[in-house]
Amino acid sequence: MASIARSSLRLRSVTRVPTARAISTTPHLRAAAKPFFADEPAAPQLATAIPGPKNKAATAELDKVFDVRSLNMLTDYSKSIGNYIADLDGNVLLDVYAQIASIPVGYNNPHLTKVAQSPEMITSLINRPALGNFPSADWADILNTGILKVAPKGLNQVFTAMAGSDANETAYKAAFMYYRQLQRGGPEKEFTEEELKTTMTNQAPGSPQLSIMSFKSGFHGRLFGSLSTTRSKPIHKLDIPAFDWPQAPFPSLKYPLEEHAQENAQEEQRCLQETERLIKEWHNPVAAVVVEPIQSEGGDNHASPAFFRGLREITKRNNVLFIVDEVQTGVGATGKFWAHDHWNLETPPDMVTFSKKAQTAGYYYGNPALRPNKPYRQFNTWMGDPARALIFRGIIEEIERLNLVEHTAQTGDYLYSGLQRLAEKYPEHLQNLRGKGQGTFIAWDTPKRDEFLGKAKGVGVNIGGSGVNAVRLRPMLIFQQHHADILLESIEKIIKQL
Amino acid sequence: MASIARSSLRLRSVTRVPTARAISTTPHLRAAAKPFFADEPAAPQLATAIPGPKNKAATAELDKVFDVRSLNMLTDYSKSIGNYIADLDGNVLLDVYAQIASIPVGYNNPHLTKVAQSPEMITSLINRPALGNFPSADWADILNTGILKVAPKGLNQVFTAMAGSDANETAYKAAFMYYRQLQRGGPEKEFTEEELKTTMTNQAPGSPQLSIMSFKSGFHGRLFGSLSTTRSKPIHKLDIPAFDWPQAPFPSLKYPLEEHAQENAQEEQRCLQETERLIKEWHNPVAAVVVEPIQSEGGDNHASPAFFRGLREITKRNNVLFIVDEVQTGVGATGKFWAHDHWNLETPPDMVTFSKKAQTAGYYYGNPALRPNKPYRQFNTWMGDPARALIFRGIIEEIERLNLVEHTAQTGDYLYSGLQRLAEKYPEHLQNLRGKGQGTFIAWDTPKRDEFLGKAKGVGVNIGGSGVNAVRLRPMLIFQQHHADILLESIEKIIKQL
Repeated sequence: MASIARSSLRLRSVTRVPTARAISTTPHLRAAAKPFFADEPAAPQLATAIPGPKNKAATAELDKVFDVRSLNMLTDYSKSIGNYIADLDGNVLLDVYAQIASIPVGYNNPHLTKVAQSPEMITSLINRPALGNFPSADWADILNTGILKVAPKGLNQVFTAMAGSDANETAYKAAFMYYRQLQRGGPEKEFTEEELKTTMTNQAPGSPQLSIMSFKSGFHGRLFGSLSTTRSKPIHKLDIPAFDWPQAPFPSLKYPLEEHAQENAQEEQRCLQETERLIKEWHNPVAAVVVEPIQSEGGDNHASPAFFRGLREITKRNNVLFIVDEVQTGVGATGKFWAHDHWNLETPPDMVTFSKKAQTAGYYYGNPALRPNKPYRQFNTWMGDPARALIFRGIIEEIERLNLVEHTAQTGDYLYSGLQRLAEKYPEHLQNLRGKGQGTFIAWDTPKRDEFLGKAKGVGVNIGGSGVNAVRLRPMLIFQQHHADILLESIEKIIKQL
Repeated sequence: MASIARSSLRLRSVTRVPTARAISTTPHLRAAAKPFFADEPAAPQLATAIPGPKNKAATAELDKVFDVRSLNMLTDYSKSIGNYIADLDGNVLLDVYAQIASIPVGYNNPHLTKVAQSPEMITSLINRPALGNFPSADWADILNTGILKVAPKGLNQVFTAMAGSDANETAYKAAFMYYRQLQRGGPEKEFTEEELKTTMTNQAPGSPQLSIMSFKSGFHGRLFGSLSTTRSKPIHKLDIPAFDWPQAPFPSLKYPLEEHAQENAQEEQRCLQETERLIKEWHNPVAAVVVEPIQSEGGDNHASPAFFRGLREITKRNNVLFIVDEVQTGVGATGKFWAHDHWNLETPPDMVTFSKKAQTAGYYYGNPALRPNKPYRQFNTWMGDPARALIFRGIIEEIERLNLVEHTAQTGDYLYSGLQRLAEKYPEHLQNLRGKGQGTFIAWDTPKRDEFLGKAKGVGVNIGGSGVNAVRLRPMLIFQQHHADILLESIEKIIKQL
């Protein structure tokens, strides 16, 4: 039955990209093409111009109480399935944006439905614990069979949070406490009277003028500490007070990589040198460096594993912590469970933050000294949400059952090769194609980017951008070759309209 | 059946507090004493010393992966019901701490169970939307029948968030954007090139050195912006960089209030004058003042409605926004749905933040100019969680069905009178009793506070503190007279052990 379904899908989503076609005949990829969602539509369905009349009316209604100017599409989740997102007017789009890269195993995933109906879920929803004070008896088990089952190598503990911004900010707080503890000479050293007094008026030494270093074009969230490390776009930062923290240069690589190997290596060296200089010289001492494996919101900017290994070396050499922000890159989309698995680090990051596809959030760590020296220093009422931790466990189970990380690596290769063909055919519209070997975490630049995104729904796909010029692909982990075929065909249709 | 159940409860929870007894015979309170949870135990059940062996073993297991030094009690939520919280060793305690004041309608509330099993809940859990981009078709309805149904008077819009800290921080962000917009001369004015450039390096004018004023002993959260307004205890703030923001004095009232009326009025005047002076003179201009109706974490510090009306006048006169942080006081516990309903303000607060008993979070506002002038200035991936918004709606339904706000006002009066008797009997152990007319939001000071709290579980109650010397009562809204009787009896037992 699966192969019949596959054939019919193929008939409807035939693509004109020969290279992609060629790759799809290799045995391991044929195996991967069995549809994960039997009830998924075979192709996008367009019923009206988008937005249609029902969506327009419902959006006007919502606007009365809720700011809708960032609204992309009011969604009928009851009709969305797998890789397909539905609106109120009968339009069903192939979704390669996936709630800003946060849906991993498909809309209305049957296994997650079971998790949502489980007794554990119900008690988590109705008896929400203050996790730091009154965790449930099975909280250790929920962590060990879920969040911690997929902990990055070398990190075996977690502080749970709500979303990406507070995951990063609590990691920063841990870094500052650790830094000052080292300065004081150990966890047993008491705070001075002056520290206890000055911190109540936000002054040093109690509230020290330390810093977190981030990279140009990086994005780490929108609360006051995380926003001070976010360097993506002015609109994210304007009018909001920020800490005087340093910004290091992020490599600006040239594509195709194989034609610019030496130049790119030099660029990465330049950035590493400047990073180390800033760590040594910045007037507010640097407690930690935070970096995304692939700068996502800021434009899908990549750097090589060598660059990140260099960064790890620099942070070690200068006794600053190394925080890897895997909020967007984590949980499989790059073809590894964690994107930093691509780097082959000798020593793991000090902290790794996660959210989005995890549906919950927090930071992993390994060094016990990163637990603050006294209780209640890293604490809040809820400290995350066990309901969302249960959903993450269900997602992990789906990823394992369907081998979705390897699957995504393979689908990504297939998709990339198709895009490469398109880039050769339409070089003016598909520039700096990047993400080779990074699963489906693929992007390119295009001079008419906003026009490109605007026309995507008209050909049946929901697709997002990043930075100023980039189209970013963020399909789910259940995105398959036949979806890639539809996507490639759709991209070509859009290009022809530009 | 209800009256039989009530009688049997009374037999087991007989109290020695005559005043409370006397009050319980008034007709409206007799009516309120019908048990809300038929299956609740009639009294606390103590099976072992606390923590018992199973709790100890399970805590040691959790400690391997999760910091347990703030752990109060590993909880068996399956055996917790109504006002009673169970541990793993068979101990069942009357819970007047309620997950740090965040459980409103009882453990395993049957109506919330239905909400948790509803199709809407399941889709919210498994198809988590990026609410700013892809809200569900029924998001407006979920808001209007839930969060917005209980919006404070004069405020008809909401920005949804995850928890108290980011609710406050997003309100602060809205305040800063509004402040700069006024300075610029309106929403249509464009940002300058210099602003666009400087904000990317966290410098003024793009990242201006504006401030949020908070009050001494206030608590507003633990992320970087909210922590800069938190002034509760050094342990919450030490080693974390903070903004140079002003701290106003909060009135230090003397009790009993009726004996210190003139002195207290003068103290409030002094604080108001100093607040206004700081607004006018602080080197980083003040965009907003944030205040709790009752300072909770900082020690249950109250001020009069006149003080808050004065604050509203000062903020209006000086063109700074007035943010009321109802994270702990909101949703009925003070005998009004919002604690600031006690103030009879002429103009509503500019923003009111909420979380805890709402089980979700955000800020209410009314002035359309508080929507930032462009989209994506106030935004993040999830912008809250519809699953938790559905739970809040279920809580609101329970509050309405059982008339729990009025009920809490009445139970609070009953409880307060009982505590007043105890304070007369044990003046050294029950000082500065406060919260009269504020529902069950009651506290007092006691010189041996930590010892008091430590002994509470031994007599069958789970109870919390605030500040350095205060015992804070934070029962649920379903706390009834017969629970108050047990609590009063338990408090007397503890005092006799000190």
